[in-house]
Amino acid sequence: MNIGIVGLGLIGGSYAKALKKFGYKIYGIDINQKSLDYALEHDIIDFGDTNPLNILSKLDVVFLCLYPDDTIRFVHKYINKFKRGAIISDVVGIKRQIIDAFDIYKHDDVEFVFTHPIAGRETSGVKHSDETIFHGANFVITPTKYNTEEAINVITILAKQMGFASVTQLPDVAHDNIIAFTSQLTHAIALSLVNSDDEKYDTSLFIGDSYKDLTRIAQINDELWSELFLKNSYYLLKHIEKFEKELDTLKTALKNKDRDSLRQLMQTATKKRSKIK
Amino acid sequence: MNIGIVGLGLIGGSYAKALKKFGYKIYGIDINQKSLDYALEHDIIDFGDTNPLNILSKLDVVFLCLYPDDTIRFVHKYINKFKRGAIISDVVGIKRQIIDAFDIYKHDDVEFVFTHPIAGRETSGVKHSDETIFHGANFVITPTKYNTEEAINVITILAKQMGFASVTQLPDVAHDNIIAFTSQLTHAIALSLVNSDDEKYDTSLFIGDSYKDLTRIAQINDELWSELFLKNSYYLLKHIEKFEKELDTLKTALKNKDRDSLRQLMQTATKKRSKIK
Repeated sequence: MNIGIVGLGLIGGSYAKALKKFGYKIYGIDINQKSLDYALEHDIIDFGDTNPLNILSKLDVVFLCLYPDDTIRFVHKYINKFKRGAIISDVVGIKRQIIDAFDIYKHDDVEFVFTHPIAGRETSGVKHSDETIFHGANFVITPTKYNTEEAINVITILAKQMGFASVTQLPDVAHDNIIAFTSQLTHAIALSLVNSDDEKYDTSLFIGDSYKDLTRIAQINDELWSELFLKNSYYLLKHIEKFEKELDTLKTALKNKDRDSLRQLMQTATKKRSKIK
Repeated sequence: MNIGIVGLGLIGGSYAKALKKFGYKIYGIDINQKSLDYALEHDIIDFGDTNPLNILSKLDVVFLCLYPDDTIRFVHKYINKFKRGAIISDVVGIKRQIIDAFDIYKHDDVEFVFTHPIAGRETSGVKHSDETIFHGANFVITPTKYNTEEAINVITILAKQMGFASVTQLPDVAHDNIIAFTSQLTHAIALSLVNSDDEKYDTSLFIGDSYKDLTRIAQINDELWSELFLKNSYYLLKHIEKFEKELDTLKTALKNKDRDSLRQLMQTATKKRSKIK
């Protein structure tokens, strides 16, 4: 099986490293020749080309490891150049708008399997790629009514081979709802926390692990994340408002010096959090 | 030098372990005989007693490793039993109210050196004590006008010996202001984030490291933290409101589909966060 990775960044490079160990022929496509050179030199891919036309027709499975809008642009440009029967997958962190964008290709003889590998780092580029970021991580497939069991199985097996701990199927709208909470809301919070630092004191001297943990993701790729925020703004706004309501409950307890209510909400949170592994 | 640790919990036990390596005689005081037995068996302390009266008069330095209100109660009860000239230190995460509580003893011939070791874990008890939690951590001393240079130096040296990376002096009010931001606000956010989970889906299957990092501290000791929140409610409310303002700016950008503003606030956060080591 020939596997193509379009976009040799952190995720694409890590996909390539993880899959190469299983003997698949890995083809890399990237607009940056240096990324391809690095990947070839480090045995991350078997073949590399900046021109998709030289490679696409050979590929049985293509992972588009690009930003959301780039993913859409790439497919629109090259839809007729994929191998007939190819499985095309993506890594975009929101799903409904991506699936809608490709709805026009539902009768093409390629099959889209839309996925979201929930993994990342505060670094980018193939040089930082590292397949261990997938170990123990969650992988989500958002099936459409056009999907075959076979194609879903192929992607499921590849995800497991890459080291993902769970492969879960969830409809696109449900995905965007829960991901707005677990991923986009957490980033919105981290950004707002850091931006509310008035820097009156040397913050570094007065922090513990809690501040570091809560703000690590505030070092953010603004090109990617502004796309994700806007493409999922409906659910993100909904979850921000639910979060604000909880924060308001806490504020009220503080203002009323209501220790019982504070302890109650702390106990509720402790119990809820204990379910998360 | 004889050092006493009052309260052999996570912090007290870790203090004892860290200081014992430097050859000090370590005396443990705890209401729980089992904690003392464990500490004696594991060579964490040299002597242990449930009755402070059997030990206090021997101690040159006493670390009160108790919750805020317990710290106050202990001092009120035993103020006349300390060795004359002893240095008494504490570990409470808020400072002004503790300092105020002990103002009545300003003419006693003991000296209070108020401190905040910014370190912890989501576990408690002497069995989980581990001196490595101090390695690289911040230690803050909030001096009063009654402090001598000698006593401040003793505590500074002991903190460095325990492995703290920085020992910073800051007035109590400034301490409570910055700590409301770096510590209490982060906990308030983590609690509200977890409590806003509607658990419509199995959250565990759709999270990455960001959700785990932002909610780790939501498993919280509600007895301790409700005290800290209430004793620092003025500054905590102030910082919650500043945080809410930043979140509101983000919401406005989202509602207006204003990508430039989103990218701008992401870039600001990235730059600010990069200053934190």
